[in-house]
Amino acid sequence: MKFGPNIALLAFGIINAVRGDAVPWERIDKDNALLLILDLQVGLFQTARDWDPTLYKQNIMAHAELGKVFDLPVIMTTSADNGPNGPLPKEMLEMYPNAPLIRRQGEVSAWDNADFRAAVEATGKKQIIVAGITTDVCTTFLALALRSEGYSVFANVEGSGTYTQLVRDTANSRMQQAGVQLVSLFSIVCDLMRDWRATPGAKEVIPYLDTYLPVYGMLARHHAAAVDNGTIIPGEIELITSANGTIVV
Amino acid sequence: MKFGPNIALLAFGIINAVRGDAVPWERIDKDNALLLILDLQVGLFQTARDWDPTLYKQNIMAHAELGKVFDLPVIMTTSADNGPNGPLPKEMLEMYPNAPLIRRQGEVSAWDNADFRAAVEATGKKQIIVAGITTDVCTTFLALALRSEGYSVFANVEGSGTYTQLVRDTANSRMQQAGVQLVSLFSIVCDLMRDWRATPGAKEVIPYLDTYLPVYGMLARHHAAAVDNGTIIPGEIELITSANGTIVV
Amino acid sequence: MKFGPNIALLAFGIINAVRGDAVPWERIDKDNALLLILDLQVGLFQTARDWDPTLYKQNIMAHAELGKVFDLPVIMTTSADNGPNGPLPKEMLEMYPNAPLIRRQGEVSAWDNADFRAAVEATGKKQIIVAGITTDVCTTFLALALRSEGYSVFANVEGSGTYTQLVRDTANSRMQQAGVQLVSLFSIVCDLMRDWRATPGAKEVIPYLDTYLPVYGMLARHHAAAVDNGTIIPGEIELITSANGTIVV
Amino acid sequence: MKFGPNIALLAFGIINAVRGDAVPWERIDKDNALLLILDLQVGLFQTARDWDPTLYKQNIMAHAELGKVFDLPVIMTTSADNGPNGPLPKEMLEMYPNAPLIRRQGEVSAWDNADFRAAVEATGKKQIIVAGITTDVCTTFLALALRSEGYSVFANVEGSGTYTQLVRDTANSRMQQAGVQLVSLFSIVCDLMRDWRATPGAKEVIPYLDTYLPVYGMLARHHAAAVDNGTIIPGEIELITSANGTIVV
Amino acid sequence: MKFGPNIALLAFGIINAVRGDAVPWERIDKDNALLLILDLQVGLFQTARDWDPTLYKQNIMAHAELGKVFDLPVIMTTSADNGPNGPLPKEMLEMYPNAPLIRRQGEVSAWDNADFRAAVEATGKKQIIVAGITTDVCTTFLALALRSEGYSVFANVEGSGTYTQLVRDTANSRMQQAGVQLVSLFSIVCDLMRDWRATPGAKEVIPYLDTYLPVYGMLARHHAAAVDNGTIIPGEIELITSANGTIVV
Amino acid sequence: MKFGPNIALLAFGIINAVRGDAVPWERIDKDNALLLILDLQVGLFQTARDWDPTLYKQNIMAHAELGKVFDLPVIMTTSADNGPNGPLPKEMLEMYPNAPLIRRQGEVSAWDNADFRAAVEATGKKQIIVAGITTDVCTTFLALALRSEGYSVFANVEGSGTYTQLVRDTANSRMQQAGVQLVSLFSIVCDLMRDWRATPGAKEVIPYLDTYLPVYGMLARHHAAAVDNGTIIPGEIELITSANGTIVV
Amino acid sequence: MKFGPNIALLAFGIINAVRGDAVPWERIDKDNALLLILDLQVGLFQTARDWDPTLYKQNIMAHAELGKVFDLPVIMTTSADNGPNGPLPKEMLEMYPNAPLIRRQGEVSAWDNADFRAAVEATGKKQIIVAGITTDVCTTFLALALRSEGYSVFANVEGSGTYTQLVRDTANSRMQQAGVQLVSLFSIVCDLMRDWRATPGAKEVIPYLDTYLPVYGMLARHHAAAVDNGTIIPGEIELITSANGTIVV
Amino acid sequence: MKFGPNIALLAFGIINAVRGDAVPWERIDKDNALLLILDLQVGLFQTARDWDPTLYKQNIMAHAELGKVFDLPVIMTTSADNGPNGPLPKEMLEMYPNAPLIRRQGEVSAWDNADFRAAVEATGKKQIIVAGITTDVCTTFLALALRSEGYSVFANVEGSGTYTQLVRDTANSRMQQAGVQLVSLFSIVCDLMRDWRATPGAKEVIPYLDTYLPVYGMLARHHAAAVDNGTIIPGEIELITSANGTIVV
Repeated sequence: MKFGPNIALLAFGIINAVRGDAVPWERIDKDNALLLILDLQVGLFQTARDWDPTLYKQNIMAHAELGKVFDLPVIMTTSADNGPNGPLPKEMLEMYPNAPLIRRQGEVSAWDNADFRAAVEATGKKQIIVAGITTDVCTTFLALALRSEGYSVFANVEGSGTYTQLVRDTANSRMQQAGVQLVSLFSIVCDLMRDWRATPGAKEVIPYLDTYLPVYGMLARHHAAAVDNGTIIPGEIELITSANGTIVV
Repeated sequence: MKFGPNIALLAFGIINAVRGDAVPWERIDKDNALLLILDLQVGLFQTARDWDPTLYKQNIMAHAELGKVFDLPVIMTTSADNGPNGPLPKEMLEMYPNAPLIRRQGEVSAWDNADFRAAVEATGKKQIIVAGITTDVCTTFLALALRSEGYSVFANVEGSGTYTQLVRDTANSRMQQAGVQLVSLFSIVCDLMRDWRATPGAKEVIPYLDTYLPVYGMLARHHAAAVDNGTIIPGEIELITSANGTIVV
Repeated sequence: MKFGPNIALLAFGIINAVRGDAVPWERIDKDNALLLILDLQVGLFQTARDWDPTLYKQNIMAHAELGKVFDLPVIMTTSADNGPNGPLPKEMLEMYPNAPLIRRQGEVSAWDNADFRAAVEATGKKQIIVAGITTDVCTTFLALALRSEGYSVFANVEGSGTYTQLVRDTANSRMQQAGVQLVSLFSIVCDLMRDWRATPGAKEVIPYLDTYLPVYGMLARHHAAAVDNGTIIPGEIELITSANGTIVV
Repeated sequence: MKFGPNIALLAFGIINAVRGDAVPWERIDKDNALLLILDLQVGLFQTARDWDPTLYKQNIMAHAELGKVFDLPVIMTTSADNGPNGPLPKEMLEMYPNAPLIRRQGEVSAWDNADFRAAVEATGKKQIIVAGITTDVCTTFLALALRSEGYSVFANVEGSGTYTQLVRDTANSRMQQAGVQLVSLFSIVCDLMRDWRATPGAKEVIPYLDTYLPVYGMLARHHAAAVDNGTIIPGEIELITSANGTIVV
Repeated sequence: MKFGPNIALLAFGIINAVRGDAVPWERIDKDNALLLILDLQVGLFQTARDWDPTLYKQNIMAHAELGKVFDLPVIMTTSADNGPNGPLPKEMLEMYPNAPLIRRQGEVSAWDNADFRAAVEATGKKQIIVAGITTDVCTTFLALALRSEGYSVFANVEGSGTYTQLVRDTANSRMQQAGVQLVSLFSIVCDLMRDWRATPGAKEVIPYLDTYLPVYGMLARHHAAAVDNGTIIPGEIELITSANGTIVV
Repeated sequence: MKFGPNIALLAFGIINAVRGDAVPWERIDKDNALLLILDLQVGLFQTARDWDPTLYKQNIMAHAELGKVFDLPVIMTTSADNGPNGPLPKEMLEMYPNAPLIRRQGEVSAWDNADFRAAVEATGKKQIIVAGITTDVCTTFLALALRSEGYSVFANVEGSGTYTQLVRDTANSRMQQAGVQLVSLFSIVCDLMRDWRATPGAKEVIPYLDTYLPVYGMLARHHAAAVDNGTIIPGEIELITSANGTIVV
Repeated sequence: MKFGPNIALLAFGIINAVRGDAVPWERIDKDNALLLILDLQVGLFQTARDWDPTLYKQNIMAHAELGKVFDLPVIMTTSADNGPNGPLPKEMLEMYPNAPLIRRQGEVSAWDNADFRAAVEATGKKQIIVAGITTDVCTTFLALALRSEGYSVFANVEGSGTYTQLVRDTANSRMQQAGVQLVSLFSIVCDLMRDWRATPGAKEVIPYLDTYLPVYGMLARHHAAAVDNGTIIPGEIELITSANGTIVV
Repeated sequence: MKFGPNIALLAFGIINAVRGDAVPWERIDKDNALLLILDLQVGLFQTARDWDPTLYKQNIMAHAELGKVFDLPVIMTTSADNGPNGPLPKEMLEMYPNAPLIRRQGEVSAWDNADFRAAVEATGKKQIIVAGITTDVCTTFLALALRSEGYSVFANVEGSGTYTQLVRDTANSRMQQAGVQLVSLFSIVCDLMRDWRATPGAKEVIPYLDTYLPVYGMLARHHAAAVDNGTIIPGEIELITSANGTIVV
C-alpha cells in the first residue's frame, strides 16, 4: 500500500504543526471574550509577593476595568471570602454590580464549582481572559481545566500574583506548556482594540492607559502640551523642525 | 484511497495534542501519590546555593511534612550518607520511622538502585512528588528515569536546591521538556486538598501553612484577631474553624 | 593655662557631636514645614528610570497630596516647562490653584531663581520637604543650597527620580553628607501626624494610605471586613473609625 | 491491514520532529532576508523600560544599520507617528531614503495594513529580521501573523523593547512557541556573514562591531595596538585587515 | 596667648574623634542590655516587603528569643493592636508572660508614650537592642529618640522590616548617621556571648543557631555526624558538647 | 476503513511523544562521548560578560579537564586565533598536546569547516559535550548543525559565555528547542561517572570537584577533618577514600 | 575662666560643621575646573565589569567630551600604555591633540608622577573632574592624593569602572569619606552650565545629551516633532489641550 | 579674652578635618603592614553566602598569598577549629609553615586572646590587612578592637564573607564608620607595589593577577599573543612569549 498526497499532506501538516507553530496564532476577539476576576481578594492580595504592592494594586484594577472599556461579559468569583482571604476590593464589586459573583465555599479550583462552570458556559464565550491570586493555584488550576475543556485562555501575567518570582515563572511556564497564551495587559488591550480608529479606540483607551500605564499616558500628555497652540518659545530649547511641515527631527 | 473521518480525527487529535496541550492536565490524586525525600542530606544542604539557607531549611521540612498532612506513602533515600553528603536531618528520620530508607552506597541516580526501584514499585503509586539536592543531578536524573518508565512526576521546585540559579533554571527546564510537572509547594498542597472543607482540609492545612507559608499564616492570625470580638486578650489569639463547617479561621 | 570644666564640656560636646550624633534628631513639625513640588514635569517623568513608571506616578502624586492632608504651604516650580521638560501634571496644578508656581526660564537650580527664593522665604518655614526630577540635579542642587542657608531639608526618596539607581544612590548619599535628612513617604506622613488620634490622624491618613500605600490599605480593608460581624455584604466594606475615638478601621 | 515501511517512516519522522527538533535549524540567508524597522519611534522609545535607554538607542541603531552592512532590503513602518508615538529617529529615515515607509494611521498590527503586506510581499524574501517597540504588541503581533503566513521570522531580542522585563520575557516566549527564532544582534550578524573572509566580512563587520558591540571593538583595538610594532603613535591606532586576506586587525 | 599641651591634646582628640572613630567601638554587655520587641505585629508583618516572609518570620522570632537565651530584660510594645496592625504573634506573648507589654493607643513613636519610657528607664539598662516594623518609622523614630537621650542603640537589621529595600537602606543609613549601631543577628549573639566556653555559650547558642541560622546548624550537624565514629545510626545524630569543655558539638 | 490496533498504537505513540516526552531521556555514555573545546580563546574570553571573569575562568578550565578525568576524546578548535580573538589558554593546549586543534581561518560555524567535521566524524562518537564563546554564535551555530546531523548534543551551560544574560538565555532556549540537552557541569560529571564506586569514581572526581566546585570540596574537607579522630594536625588534612571501597573522604 | 562669644561661636561652628555639613556645598565653576582623562585605556576597558560595555563606552566618551563642550583644560594620562593596558581610544587622542598626555611608565598613582603633578599645577585650577579605570585604584589613589593637597575633587561615578559592583561601591564610599564629591555626568553638565540660557547652554548641551543621554535626547526630539507647524491631525489620538494657550494637558 | 591666630588655625584645622577628610589618606606601606588570615576555615566557608563559593575560594587564596608576593609578616588564627568551624585550608597552612597559628579555644574576638595580641604586637607593624569569616563578627570585632588600639586597618572586602549581602554591607559600613579602610584586593596589591617597575613589581604581580584576577591575566595573555611575531618588547610588562614564533602564551 502506498500513501497518496492526502497522507503526505497529513504528515506535512503534523510536522508543520509540531515544528514552528506549537501554539498557533489566535487573536482575542472582543465579541468572543469573557473576563474573569478570580480570587483577587483583599486578604490574598498580601500573598502576591512577586509584585510591589502599590504597582500590583494598579494592575488588578486595570485587569478588572478591561470589562468596562471593551464591554466584555465579566464573571467574578472568590474563595472563602469571609475567612482570611477576605472579600474582593469594593471597587471591583461596584464596577460590575450585575455580573455573576460566585462565592466558592471551599473549592480551590473555580472549575470544580458547578455555579461557576454554569456562569462561564452561559456566556457562550470561548476566549477567557483571566487573572487571579495565586498564580500557581487559582489561575493555573482554572486555566488548565479550561484548556482541557477546549477553551482558549489568555492569562494576564500582570494581573496574577503569587508567593515568589520562582513560583510565578514556574506556574506561567506550566500554563504555557498546556497551551495557555501568556499575555501582557497592553497586548490584551491592543488585541481587543485592533485599530486606534476603532470603537472602542484611542478615545477610550488612552485615558485608560493614562491611569494604568502612565509611561504611555505621560507621553501623551507630553505630546499634547507641545502641540498646544503650536507656539513655543522655549528659551531656544528645541531641536530643529522642518520648514515644510514634514517630520524631520 | 481516501481517509475517512477516523483518520481525520486522528490527525485532529495529534494536532490538538501538539498545539495547545503538549503537557496534559493532570491533578495530583492523594490516593495515587507517593512522596520522595531524595538526598536532602545535611552536608548536601550546603550546596543548595540557589536559596537563602534559612528559608530553604523551611522548604525541605515543608516538603517532608506533606506526607504527614496528607497521609501519603513516603520513601527516603540518601547518597553515601556516611561521607561528606551527611545523613538526613533527624527531624525527617523521626517523622517517618517506618518508611523505607534506601541508603545508596554509590549510585548517583536513585533509579539505578534496585532496592529503591522495588520500594517505589511496591507502593503501586503512579504519581511521584519529589524534591532533592541537587536539582540538576539527584532530582533530574530520577525524574527523567521515572518519566521514561511512565510515571507522572511532580517536581516541587521549592524543595530542590543546587549550585546556582542558572543551574536550577536549566535543570527545571530540562525536566519540563521531558514532561515533568514543575509545581510549587502551595500548588501541591492545594491539589492534594482540592476543597477547604475536605479531610484533610482547612483544619489540617492552615496550621501547616502557618508554619511553612507564614505570609498566609499571618493573614489567618490577622483575621482571627479581628473577628475575636474586636478585643484582644494576649495569649488567646487562635486559629479557629467555625463549628458549622464554614471557614472562619 | 589649664582648661576648666567649660572647655572640657566643650570638648565633650564636640566629641559627642562627632561620635554618635553627626546628624541630630529632628522631627518634622507640621507648623514649620513647607512642601516643594520640584520639576515633577510630564517630560522629565520619562527620565526617572530608577522607578517602575506606574509606581513612580503614584509616588509623585502621593508627594503632592501631602500638602492637602496636612494643610502645608506648597510651592511648585518648573524648569523650562514649555520645552521638552513639559508642564506639571494637571492633577498637581489643580490641587493647589492658589499656590505659587515659579516657572523658571533657565535656572537649573531653583535657588538661583529670585522669585523662588522669595516664595520660600515668604512662608517663614524652616523645614523643607522636597521631591524632584532629577534627583541628582534638581533635588540635590536645591537641597545643598537650602542646607547652606540653614534650612532643614527632608528629601522624600520615593518622590525623586533619576537616570539610574547608581545615580540615585550617589545623589542621595551626597545630600546625606550635607545634612539632608533622607526619608520615606511613610516616615514623612507619620512624623507629621505623630499620633493616630491627632487631627489630621487616622481618619485622614488611612484613606491616603489606602490610595498610595495599598499594602497598608488592603490590610485595613482586610481588618474591616473581618470585624464586620463576619458577614460580608458586597459594596458595604468600608474603612471605618469607631465612634469612641479608638482606632478600629 | 499492516503498515509498511512508509507509514513507519512517517511515524518515525513525526516522532523525530517532535523529539529533538521542534524548531528546525535554519540559517539566515542574506539573499533571502528582509529587514523590518518596526515602530522604533522616538515617543515609543520611552516605553522600552526593559533597557537602559543609552544602551537601547545603540541597539536600535545597530538593528537599522544591518541593512546597510549586508545590503538587505529594508521596510520601515510607524504607528500614528504624528501623535504621542512620534516619528522614527531621523538617522533611520536618512539611512534608507528610498526604502518604503508605511505610516499606519491606526492599525496596531502592521500585518493588518495592506500597504505593509504588499511591501513585504514585493520583496519576495521569506526570512524576516525584525525589531519593534513594544515587544509584546508590535513585534509579537506581526511575528505571529508572519508565522501564520509561512514566513521565517528572526526576532532580534536586543532591538525590541517594552514596559518590563516580565513582559519582554513573556512576549519572547510566546513568539518562540509559535516558531519565531529568537536571536541576538551578534548572531544575526554572524549568520549573515558566515565567514570572516567573505564579502561583507571582517572589513565591513569589525567597524560595525566597534560601534555597536564595543566589547569586541575594544578587543580589536587592543590587538591592533599590540601588533603595531610596539610603538604607539597617538592617532594612528587603526583597525586593520592584512593585505593577504587573513584576519589581522 | 599660646596653647599648651592640653589644648593640643584637645585638638588632637577632636581630630581623632572625627577621623577614624566617628562611631566608637562599643561592645554589647549582657548585663547592661535591654531587648525591645517593637510593633512586630501580625498585621504590620505584611508590610515588611523587604524580606521573604518565610525568612522574616524566622528573623523576628530569633530576635524575640534573644531575651530567653541571654536572660535579658524584655519590653514589648504595640501600636493600635486592635486595629489593622494586629496583635503580636502569640509565641512572643507566651515567651515573656511577665514582661511589660505597652499597648500604645495612638503614639507612632514609642518614646512619645510615657508608660514605655518609664518601662525602659525602670530597667536601668543603657544598651538597647531593637527590631520593629516598620524600619523607617517604628524603629527609626524610637532609635533617634533613644540616641538623643544618651542611650546606645543596637538596631538588629535582620529583625526590622519595611515597604521596600530602598526605604530600608535609607532608614538604616539615617539611624547610622545618628550614632545607632547597625548590627546583624549573629553579631548580637556573638557580642553577648563573647566566648563559646562562657555561660550562656555553645550549649545554649548552638541549638539557637540550629533553629534560626540553619546554615550554621547544618554545619554543626554535619560535623557531629562525621565525628560519631563514622557510623550513622538514624535518630541518634545529636548536637553535642563534649564533657571536658572543649567544643565538639 | 477502520484502523486496527497498529494505527491506534501509532497514534498513541505520537501523542505520548508529544505530551510528556518531547526531549527523551538520554544518558551521557563515557564510551560514546566527545568533548569539544570551542573557541574558548583568551581574547573572546573578554566578551563573556554573563559571568564574573574569575569564576568563568574556573568554569572553562573545568570544562576542558573533563576529558582528562573521564578519558574522553577531545577536539579543540579556534576562530581566527591570530587576530583579536586570541589563542586558546596555554593550559588547554598543554592538556591535550595530541588532540586535533582545528584553527579555522574564517568560518564562524565550526561545522562549516571540513577539517573539523572530519575530526568529529573520525571519533565515531555520537554524543557531543560542548562549551564555547560566544554562546549565541559559536555554541549555538555548531549545536544546531550537529542536531541536524543526528548527533546528541550536551551543552555545558556553565562553560559557554556571551555578551549579556539575555543573550545567554535566548541562545540556550533556542538550542533547547532544537533538542540540545542543556546541562550543568556537575550533571555532566555525575552522568559520566554514574556511581561513586566506579572507575573513574570518587577517587578521581572528588579532587576535581575540590578544584572546580569548591563548595563540595570544602564539604569533603570539613568531613575529612571531623573524622580524623577529632584531632587536627595542620598539614595532614587530606581528602581520603577508605581502603575498603566505601566512600569516606 | 569663662568662654566668651568667640569660643562659643567656635564651638557652634565646629558642631555645625560636624552635624549637617560634613561635606560642604561647592559648585563646579567652569573657570576653575580641570578635566582629567585617567587611564581610560582600551585594554583596561575590559576590566570595567561593573558596566555593560556598550553603555560604558558611551560614558567614557561623554566624560572626555565635557572638555570640548565647556572649553575646560584637559589632561590625559595613561599607565604603561604599550603593555596589556593598551592606549587611549583614538577618539580621545584626536579630541585633544594639544592637551598634555602623560604616559606613565610605571607609577600606579598618577600623583606619584612628577610630570603629571606639574601639568595639573600648571593649569592653576582647583576643581578636578575625574574618571578612570579602575575606580578603586586609578581614580581612588589619585583622588585621595588630590584631596590631601587641598584640591576639590568631583568624581564622575559614571565614567569610572572596575572589577565588580562591590568594588565600585567600596571605592566610591572610600573617596566620599575623604571629601571627594561623587557626582553623575548629568550633574556635572548642569553644574557647569548653571542656566539653560547661558553660553554654553541649551544650544551646546542638548546635542551633547542627545548623544550621551538619549533618554533626554529622545524627549527633545519627541517635543520638537510635536511642535512642528503646530498642526497635528493625530487620527484623534490626543489629549485635550487648552483653548487659551495656558498649559492644561 | 580673644583668640589669636592659633586658635583660629585650630578651628580651621578641626573644620577641615571634619569637612572633606574624615578618614585621611593613608597608603599601605609594605614595610609596616601585617597580613591576618582570620578564621578562613573550611567549615565557616559554607556560611559565606554573599559570594559564589567558587569565586570566594579564589578570593581567600588570593588574600593569603598576598604575604608571599610582598613578603609580609603573616599571622593565622582560627576559632574552635576542631569543631564545626573546621580547620584552615591546608594550602594556607602549608604556605606559611613558620607563621604563628593561634588556635582560639573559645574567644569570638581574636583580640580577646592574649596570644593573638602578643603575636600582633611582636611584629611591630601598625597597618593591618585583614579578611575573615564572618565579616560581621570575626572581621568586624577584630577591626573595631584594632582601631581602638590605634592601628590602621585595611579590610579586604573581597576576602571576608558572611550570611547575606545585607549583613555584609551593614558590617562594612559599621567598620568604615570606625575608621577602617575598606579596600579591594586589587587596591591592596597596587598600594603595596606602587610602581610596576618596583620589586616586587610586574614580574611578581602579573602572574599573581593571572591566577586571581583572570580578567587582567587574560588581557595580558591577549597582549602577549599579539606582540609575538610582531616582536615587541612591551616595556617589560609581558608574559612569556615563545622563542619560535608560535603562540604559547
